[in-house]
Amino acid sequence: MAVKSLDDLFVHTLKDVLYAEQAILKALPKMEKKASSDALKTAFGEHRKETEEHVERLNKVFEQIGKKASASKCEAIVGITEEAEELMGEIEDPEALDAGMTAAAQAVEHYEIARYGTLVAWAKELGHTEAAKILEKTLGEEKAADEKLTGIAESRLNKRAA
Amino acid sequence: MAVKSLDDLFVHTLKDVLYAEQAILKALPKMEKKASSDALKTAFGEHRKETEEHVERLNKVFEQIGKKASASKCEAIVGITEEAEELMGEIEDPEALDAGMTAAAQAVEHYEIARYGTLVAWAKELGHTEAAKILEKTLGEEKAADEKLTGIAESRLNKRAA
Repeated sequence: MAVKSLDDLFVHTLKDVLYAEQAILKALPKMEKKASSDALKTAFGEHRKETEEHVERLNKVFEQIGKKASASKCEAIVGITEEAEELMGEIEDPEALDAGMTAAAQAVEHYEIARYGTLVAWAKELGHTEAAKILEKTLGEEKAADEKLTGIAESRLNKRAA
Repeated sequence: MAVKSLDDLFVHTLKDVLYAEQAILKALPKMEKKASSDALKTAFGEHRKETEEHVERLNKVFEQIGKKASASKCEAIVGITEEAEELMGEIEDPEALDAGMTAAAQAVEHYEIARYGTLVAWAKELGHTEAAKILEKTLGEEKAADEKLTGIAESRLNKRAA
């Protein structure tokens, strides 16, 4: 699509984020299976359920602005998830694998935090008040997921230091 | 490189971030030139100078851990910067272009915040105390750059609302 206005940018970014959420939804069960630490396994499992809701919410936002929901390839997420897949194939040490998967998941979370932050601001700017509220809810959950992963990474570090 | 251990992951991620910083260093002057708002122009210019320092710091970290500094292609940053280039070619409306470039820059900042956050944690875990301090300095500057961009986006929004 040709992007000319803030309206176009908003729709374009919604499609990008929908693609990202769908890609993550595919990656998370594999990561959950590969995780050694119970905390990480649980975090990936819980985030998968949240991600299903995020997809639903995006569909609702498309509906509210009168556009057909569709995904548009997001190269950033392709890059991050492909790298995570490579790591899952290469690393045999369970602790290193957990560390690598946590890092990949945090890169994904931060991508989403940036995109949802932007979408919330643009939804407000364009007067899509309801859409802004929906997107803000997801933004909060992505931030919480990132903080949870930081906590898991830190507790692994403290365990090793002890 | 084959990644097997946390040591390998640390070096691999340093190379990934060096690639990202170099890519951003190339993109920022174009974005500075295309920006309409003075605040955004200044922010891109200042961040270019900071990014030069970030590259220097990464070189220092490689030196400290006794590895040759080299960059490894980071698909996430390639994706984000290519999208920004496309927008710069497509959008003619100056306000929409500023909004799109601000969003792209924030996606870059968040990628870096995730990566430097991980690098700081791993440097500590691996006992690279000096490297951790250097990386933490850059992490702080990436967070500040992101907050500055949020401020610029919000002030544009408030101006339009007034």
